[in-house]
Amino acid sequence: MGHGGGGQMSSELVDHLFLPAFADDTLRQLGDSAVLELLGGRIAFSTDTFVVRPLFFPGGSIGELAVNGTVNDLAMSGAQAIFLSAAFILEEGTDVAQVGAVAQRLGEAARQAGVRVVTGDTKVVESGHGDGVYVSTAGLGVVPEGVDVRPDRAEPGDVVIVSGDIGVHGVAIMSVREGLQFGTDIESDTQPLNGLVAEMLAAHRDIHVLRDPTRGGVATSLNEIARASKVGVRLDEGRLPIPEVVSNACAFLGLDPLQVANEGKLLAFVPRSAADLVLEAMRAHPAGLGACVIGEVVEDHPGLVATTTAFGASRVVDLPVGEQLPRIC
Amino acid sequence: MGHGGGGQMSSELVDHLFLPAFADDTLRQLGDSAVLELLGGRIAFSTDTFVVRPLFFPGGSIGELAVNGTVNDLAMSGAQAIFLSAAFILEEGTDVAQVGAVAQRLGEAARQAGVRVVTGDTKVVESGHGDGVYVSTAGLGVVPEGVDVRPDRAEPGDVVIVSGDIGVHGVAIMSVREGLQFGTDIESDTQPLNGLVAEMLAAHRDIHVLRDPTRGGVATSLNEIARASKVGVRLDEGRLPIPEVVSNACAFLGLDPLQVANEGKLLAFVPRSAADLVLEAMRAHPAGLGACVIGEVVEDHPGLVATTTAFGASRVVDLPVGEQLPRIC
Repeated sequence: MGHGGGGQMSSELVDHLFLPAFADDTLRQLGDSAVLELLGGRIAFSTDTFVVRPLFFPGGSIGELAVNGTVNDLAMSGAQAIFLSAAFILEEGTDVAQVGAVAQRLGEAARQAGVRVVTGDTKVVESGHGDGVYVSTAGLGVVPEGVDVRPDRAEPGDVVIVSGDIGVHGVAIMSVREGLQFGTDIESDTQPLNGLVAEMLAAHRDIHVLRDPTRGGVATSLNEIARASKVGVRLDEGRLPIPEVVSNACAFLGLDPLQVANEGKLLAFVPRSAADLVLEAMRAHPAGLGACVIGEVVEDHPGLVATTTAFGASRVVDLPVGEQLPRIC
Repeated sequence: MGHGGGGQMSSELVDHLFLPAFADDTLRQLGDSAVLELLGGRIAFSTDTFVVRPLFFPGGSIGELAVNGTVNDLAMSGAQAIFLSAAFILEEGTDVAQVGAVAQRLGEAARQAGVRVVTGDTKVVESGHGDGVYVSTAGLGVVPEGVDVRPDRAEPGDVVIVSGDIGVHGVAIMSVREGLQFGTDIESDTQPLNGLVAEMLAAHRDIHVLRDPTRGGVATSLNEIARASKVGVRLDEGRLPIPEVVSNACAFLGLDPLQVANEGKLLAFVPRSAADLVLEAMRAHPAGLGACVIGEVVEDHPGLVATTTAFGASRVVDLPVGEQLPRIC
């Protein structure tokens, strides 16, 4: 508990674990807040909390999620992340080496995404509260001139693009959490998407909507966009990039792959005329190699998402009602 | 658990509790991040997490702390807070009415401080993890032209000012947590300090250091400043504004009032020539009515804080080593 009291033990935790992991000159000043120079214009501001269990999983950890989740939320407004804050809630008795490993992974993920961790906070709660480590990050990004990406800008004539395979993060977490083996090893897809988004915007400035289908999956993101934009979305079920291990796992667990969380994928709504250009730019970036069109925006059934099966039948893709898998991020 | 899944139940929680409580047009758009217009210049960025127990206490709640804590961290860089993010970790089974009450108090505190809650997040963890409600806030503020407030700017010749009575928040929490009565009712001093800081900077632009002595109290803040600025700090023990209820409680519990947390007070390091002007401005503001000089910066014992007792004796004021009172904010 002493490490959270703000006294000498707190400052040891900060000096020995967090400062080396995040390696930032502004953070090192340890002011109550970070003071930073910013050009005028539009900024994006976002926050996310991470309570994933287990802390380390195939393909990532809560450290990568904490960076990529917030960097990606900013990117979904077309913004390039520049600064991050990181606030930790540690459970008393948590192995300090484990906290250090989380901090290291967080610091590395930040460097990979090209974003600086400039301010932070640590609290400690009694053993039996919290759960090892929770992390909240907030992020600041800059929205380039002329970019206007919003969930209410989808319009009939737009195509819906996904950047790659869906359902991978959720199934990776389930595989370790439930001790299930699905025949193949599967790793979380957690990755920063800011680089991919920059390439997409360079190819075509007027991207209408971007969204990373995390909790609640592709189904939730598409429903939110359909409602916000008051349009219908029609998916082509045959074109959904669902890896076999994901569809097997979902069949086994009775889940819909469209409702499974992703942590390194995005959905883009783009005017049909620009689709080829955007797809080409995406496929040239490591985070968008598997990019493909999965559907289109229609005037019919505003606010609803429908999918057409290989047999020509149609079904409504709804929001999951409750919790499919708790603590996936 | 369903309320944290990102699906339909999540959106009910957001629509019914958070949006009405925070009443902000940008937040209402529910983008992945808030996009905001900002003039160029220096911004301050800060984050803080709140795990206080109990959630509601005399004089405040975790909602007020979550706003005032971050607004005040920004103010300690001389910045005026403009935008806040709020991220909640809810424990499964927590009374929804209680979550709503926290959100209401948070929204009211934001309006009182003149800051907008523009983005947020909610996660739910299983019953037996977390503890009712944890909140992380991050804040963005603007640093006015010509202001340069930093913990390493204290210099010999500065006087040390405190804005009012010390130790009040910590003793208020102890009184309810431990079921102790200290003869008088005592209420937390949680309040936003941005208005007070604006008045101080208007009176004298070149304030050297500001710090709100929260966890670890006045002792910790002064030690951090002495170390950062490589100067000595000498306190005049007879001038410390310690209310009787605080000194009684501390005597009873074996605590040092200088190490007890405050949530609505600040320490200021100001050139001696400007002290009267700054004090006058402070006393004209409701948050600074009790402002007084408690010490000075000296060339002796750099990095150390010493206090002179009424009998002329001197003692070193050290950082508390561990945790005096867990989960005070």
